[in-house]
Amino acid sequence: MLGRNYNNQVCSAARALEVVGERWSLLIIRDAMFGGITKFTDFQRHLGIAPNTLATRLDGFVSAGLMELHRYSDQHHEYVLTEKGRDLQPVIIALSAWGDRWAAPDGPPVVYRHHECGGRLDLQLRCRSCHQSVTSAQVTPQPGPGLHRMHSD
Amino acid sequence: MLGRNYNNQVCSAARALEVVGERWSLLIIRDAMFGGITKFTDFQRHLGIAPNTLATRLDGFVSAGLMELHRYSDQHHEYVLTEKGRDLQPVIIALSAWGDRWAAPDGPPVVYRHHECGGRLDLQLRCRSCHQSVTSAQVTPQPGPGLHRMHSD
Repeated sequence: MLGRNYNNQVCSAARALEVVGERWSLLIIRDAMFGGITKFTDFQRHLGIAPNTLATRLDGFVSAGLMELHRYSDQHHEYVLTEKGRDLQPVIIALSAWGDRWAAPDGPPVVYRHHECGGRLDLQLRCRSCHQSVTSAQVTPQPGPGLHRMHSD
Repeated sequence: MLGRNYNNQVCSAARALEVVGERWSLLIIRDAMFGGITKFTDFQRHLGIAPNTLATRLDGFVSAGLMELHRYSDQHHEYVLTEKGRDLQPVIIALSAWGDRWAAPDGPPVVYRHHECGGRLDLQLRCRSCHQSVTSAQVTPQPGPGLHRMHSD
């Protein structure tokens, strides 16, 4: 158990949610990542969200460096995920895995497969030292290097 | 790339976000999971959120089966994560990993360690068939069994 000094300001999950925790954010990223969507009108049609909300989210992603705006002409531009945006893939896969287990009585609507061999993919916790696969109950959170530094600022 | 019929209603990530996508939700779960917090006043103090928002979230978690309310007396009750709630651990660890990489210039504020050997933990995508560790670029989403079923309802 962590002490009192583990608070929102020094939690990486909280910082991630500051960037992608707004309503629709992760579904827009999902569409870009797994649906190959890049155009404003395609995001809008696919998600069925208000254009002003979509515009706010996409502009926010460009500002935060999750997407780049590629402008080909006044009418034609695309939103393309950067490495920082693509790196949210495990978050989306972890959410999907939870939904598959707890909110998909008819089985997973989408399965993630290994491109090379076609096998199903699982997200696993692995230990860097002993290389074992680790279950939830075997996880211990500890203060890391960024904790002290931020508190002494 | 998935077709038109991959929409919010049949996406497990979207269903997960319906349950834990509201502001504060995942941080409350995080506090329960890694901070060992169970009491209303402790959640409130730790997160600094409005009591009515916290009450709404906790009640929602109980309704959704993520937490159980253990009532010992009128003054004394605790919110305890169920298996369904604890199963959100990979989501929180994936968010933390992203935040560590992209929003923690001084290093991770919190590190997750293997209880048994003390090693650092990583979330890895693994293939069930060939048992290889798989990178983001090797992931192919495909329609799963729950997709057809829901569309034929």
